[in-house]
Amino acid sequence: MPRPVLITGDWRPARAASTFHAIDPSTGSALPDEYPVSHWDDAEAALTAAAKAAAELRDVPVERIGKFLTAYAAAIEARSTEIVDMAHRETGLAKTPRLATGELPRTTNQLRQAAAAALDGSWSLPTIDSKLNIRSRHAAIGPVIVIGPNNFPLAFNSVAGGDFAAAIAAGNPVIAKAHPSHPGTTRLLAEEALRAVHEAALPAATVQLIYRTSREDGARLVADVRVGATGFTGSRSAGLALKHAADAAGKPVYLEMSSLNPVVVLSGALQTRADKIADEFADSCLASAGQLCTKPGLLIVIAGPHTESFLAKLRQRFAERPAATLLSPVVAQSLDASLKTLTSSKAEILAGGSAVPGPACRFNNTLLRVSGVDFLANPHALQTEAFGNASMVVIASDTDQARAILEELDGQLTGAIYSDAQGGDDDAYNLLAPIVRRRVGRLLNDKMPTGVAVSPAMNHGGPYPATGHSGFTSVGIPASLRRFSQLECYDNIRQHRLPRILQDRNPNPQAARLIDGHWSQADVPPRA
Amino acid sequence: MPRPVLITGDWRPARAASTFHAIDPSTGSALPDEYPVSHWDDAEAALTAAAKAAAELRDVPVERIGKFLTAYAAAIEARSTEIVDMAHRETGLAKTPRLATGELPRTTNQLRQAAAAALDGSWSLPTIDSKLNIRSRHAAIGPVIVIGPNNFPLAFNSVAGGDFAAAIAAGNPVIAKAHPSHPGTTRLLAEEALRAVHEAALPAATVQLIYRTSREDGARLVADVRVGATGFTGSRSAGLALKHAADAAGKPVYLEMSSLNPVVVLSGALQTRADKIADEFADSCLASAGQLCTKPGLLIVIAGPHTESFLAKLRQRFAERPAATLLSPVVAQSLDASLKTLTSSKAEILAGGSAVPGPACRFNNTLLRVSGVDFLANPHALQTEAFGNASMVVIASDTDQARAILEELDGQLTGAIYSDAQGGDDDAYNLLAPIVRRRVGRLLNDKMPTGVAVSPAMNHGGPYPATGHSGFTSVGIPASLRRFSQLECYDNIRQHRLPRILQDRNPNPQAARLIDGHWSQADVPPRA
Repeated sequence: MPRPVLITGDWRPARAASTFHAIDPSTGSALPDEYPVSHWDDAEAALTAAAKAAAELRDVPVERIGKFLTAYAAAIEARSTEIVDMAHRETGLAKTPRLATGELPRTTNQLRQAAAAALDGSWSLPTIDSKLNIRSRHAAIGPVIVIGPNNFPLAFNSVAGGDFAAAIAAGNPVIAKAHPSHPGTTRLLAEEALRAVHEAALPAATVQLIYRTSREDGARLVADVRVGATGFTGSRSAGLALKHAADAAGKPVYLEMSSLNPVVVLSGALQTRADKIADEFADSCLASAGQLCTKPGLLIVIAGPHTESFLAKLRQRFAERPAATLLSPVVAQSLDASLKTLTSSKAEILAGGSAVPGPACRFNNTLLRVSGVDFLANPHALQTEAFGNASMVVIASDTDQARAILEELDGQLTGAIYSDAQGGDDDAYNLLAPIVRRRVGRLLNDKMPTGVAVSPAMNHGGPYPATGHSGFTSVGIPASLRRFSQLECYDNIRQHRLPRILQDRNPNPQAARLIDGHWSQADVPPRA
Repeated sequence: MPRPVLITGDWRPARAASTFHAIDPSTGSALPDEYPVSHWDDAEAALTAAAKAAAELRDVPVERIGKFLTAYAAAIEARSTEIVDMAHRETGLAKTPRLATGELPRTTNQLRQAAAAALDGSWSLPTIDSKLNIRSRHAAIGPVIVIGPNNFPLAFNSVAGGDFAAAIAAGNPVIAKAHPSHPGTTRLLAEEALRAVHEAALPAATVQLIYRTSREDGARLVADVRVGATGFTGSRSAGLALKHAADAAGKPVYLEMSSLNPVVVLSGALQTRADKIADEFADSCLASAGQLCTKPGLLIVIAGPHTESFLAKLRQRFAERPAATLLSPVVAQSLDASLKTLTSSKAEILAGGSAVPGPACRFNNTLLRVSGVDFLANPHALQTEAFGNASMVVIASDTDQARAILEELDGQLTGAIYSDAQGGDDDAYNLLAPIVRRRVGRLLNDKMPTGVAVSPAMNHGGPYPATGHSGFTSVGIPASLRRFSQLECYDNIRQHRLPRILQDRNPNPQAARLIDGHWSQADVPPRA
């Protein structure tokens, strides 16, 4: 009997088309719990309930949405040992320094930041023209489908992560689709979410959970007329299939799909701090077995007297560190396939390159190298993402060739440039930085891209195909909330019928509003 | 010899696949000037030049972009008589009260507001985390394709209107595609734009103009890898074809496509001010021959003692006012076809219904009626847009049926509700307003939707299929600029390499920035 799904506030038996088990990647064996692959009927029921909840949520004071998010954060903390144990078992990610000390606090922090943003109201960009009595703001868009990735069982979980928190804080119900590699973790989180829904007296269908659907039903879900928008984090192929369906239906879909996160190390930097950069690169590539969206998958160096010794340092670090446990057999197979594509396009393996024999999903840390000439001869294949503990160094013959390489790159989440602290690399920097800037969401100096801070200034987004729309970020509150909103304008609406944030009196003295062309926290001045 | 196109700052002969003439709708005759339908080669040349200009514009101080926009506004005013004469000849729109007194000042006002927004910088939502030294803002996305509609030869013109002003103010070059019904107006505007480009010393390809392409080349253009985004205003069929192409390439496309702009008149309002509402409705429907994006195409009233007398008032006004000159033969044909669809779905003609015989593009003011039951039996066909001087009244049997009718409506730009000023309609309002709210970009009370104010609080957008994305507006500065931007983040970037708006010192003391979670116009405080 598979585990029930969460629909309309009830844990009820799924209409299961089939069932599945998660796999413990440290053993390669299936875990005992059985989970349903839902028939469309489950999605249909969830959509009907979510549409009703969306209408009800429009009349719910933001204080109750804030209460839900903070109560949920506290409930996750209260059950953290069990949740972390389950996530560790299902993903192989370390409890410390990763799940217990990093990802779980990040998750509850995001929920609390989202609560604060909902209460503050500034996220909605309230805009008032007092002379014409026209007022606008961003507001809830309707039921949001959240489809989370395999690599963050907590902080990007479809029922607890950043997309979830943003969608709820913007006033929308969420239909979460679990990632099939950690259904148990998702179930435990959803149990706590439901308790918090009751505690805050939100509509019962504010949070719903389906574990898995067919790919066809997933596409049908994001295109359904009752849906407001979709947030997805995962592979490019899955993301593009959803995008195709949602686009055709005119439904906004926010996708974080793939990124190589190129890092350019200029000659002066290499000359003065090769060891430090080698450490930072190895740390960034191999943390969490390289299974981070912003793992640097491409390191570009310019051939010079220090290049080969730098490569030797990198190789040593990759070879010395222990082989990593990957999230699932699927990840291991996909990594192996990516490496085959890269090596058949003239990339050469410097370290690793193969799985560790045995039942566990373990892979040797892998470092590749390729020449700039070979990269330019086959730039498409050599941009194949190798998700996992692998990265590739491209050795450009000179700065001009580095520029040509960068110009071939697809849209990315991040791009980093290391340069001489004394200004010795400034000419090269000034040539290359604009090329990188146009292709990335986040540009870094002298820093690796992993460790995406939950900051209002963060952009975890970037040009297509890194994401589906370069104007939005999935990390960084309050901006992430606006993905799940529509712009609402009120023209000549009687004062008492206006949403509170648009009334003359500012309901929250902290809220910034654009009044008659000026940002202000004041009330609208009385008309003369 | 067809008129030249504007590419890379030169008026040069088009590579013409064929040619066309505009038509004077008041005579039905072709105007003398010959214009090219460009071969793809022209688009290719414009794209190459625009990509180069986009890179150059990143280093241009905003002051020069502001200078261009204000110089252009002044140049349009200096040549206003000629421009208005040409627009009148090509569109049949009145010089007064429309082109000279309304649309031209609106156009120059938009250009000046866009200049002010560019100089101010707040539009870009500068966000600074001073502790982590992470900073982000919205910035230019790259070459913008602007495709303007037939109905605003100046204020939505591809080379002078709202999309153009927003795209330029956000720092992007524009490739304008003229509307084929007013190429001469577009040419005169582009001549002034080029002069202003020179005056402000912007890259020569900042403004380029092609008159017309094949439909296939239009789709190819918006999907080109060099393009940043597209702004389109026009028909749903043309818009959806572009959306399909742009979506598949991962290119943002902002489309304003269609809207019925429902107006609900509740019983108390009808009882107390039927004459006033009838005047307002007729004015709103028939101004500019009903060829406005927000013309109320659907009036919903609830059957009662005042309904038939109200309909008689409406019929009288539609019948008494003179037949209008439409923009072009295409508009007249399309209106006729729409009316056939409506009448074959049981809508009954109360006034007008046919073209005025003769060569001019004139159509009798047309009013239709249909019962709520018949509407609900065929809600898709009865939502056919009748662009022009026509509108339809739906008579709902009661409030519940009115709700059912509203629930069938597609996404709209606007929705208005007239209600009793003393509160007598409040129950009905409270029932119906949430249904309308979800389906429209702008909700109005006691006011018709035409006359879209250029206000920061305006939303000229709405849920699909009224537009392509409900989070954005095409009118209303500064919000309209953000459509043509991508989110850029700077992580640990050395201070002197940051864009000015993100440096510690606020370059414009008026600019609002979100610093460490608080909106502020101050500099970033020095680190302790």
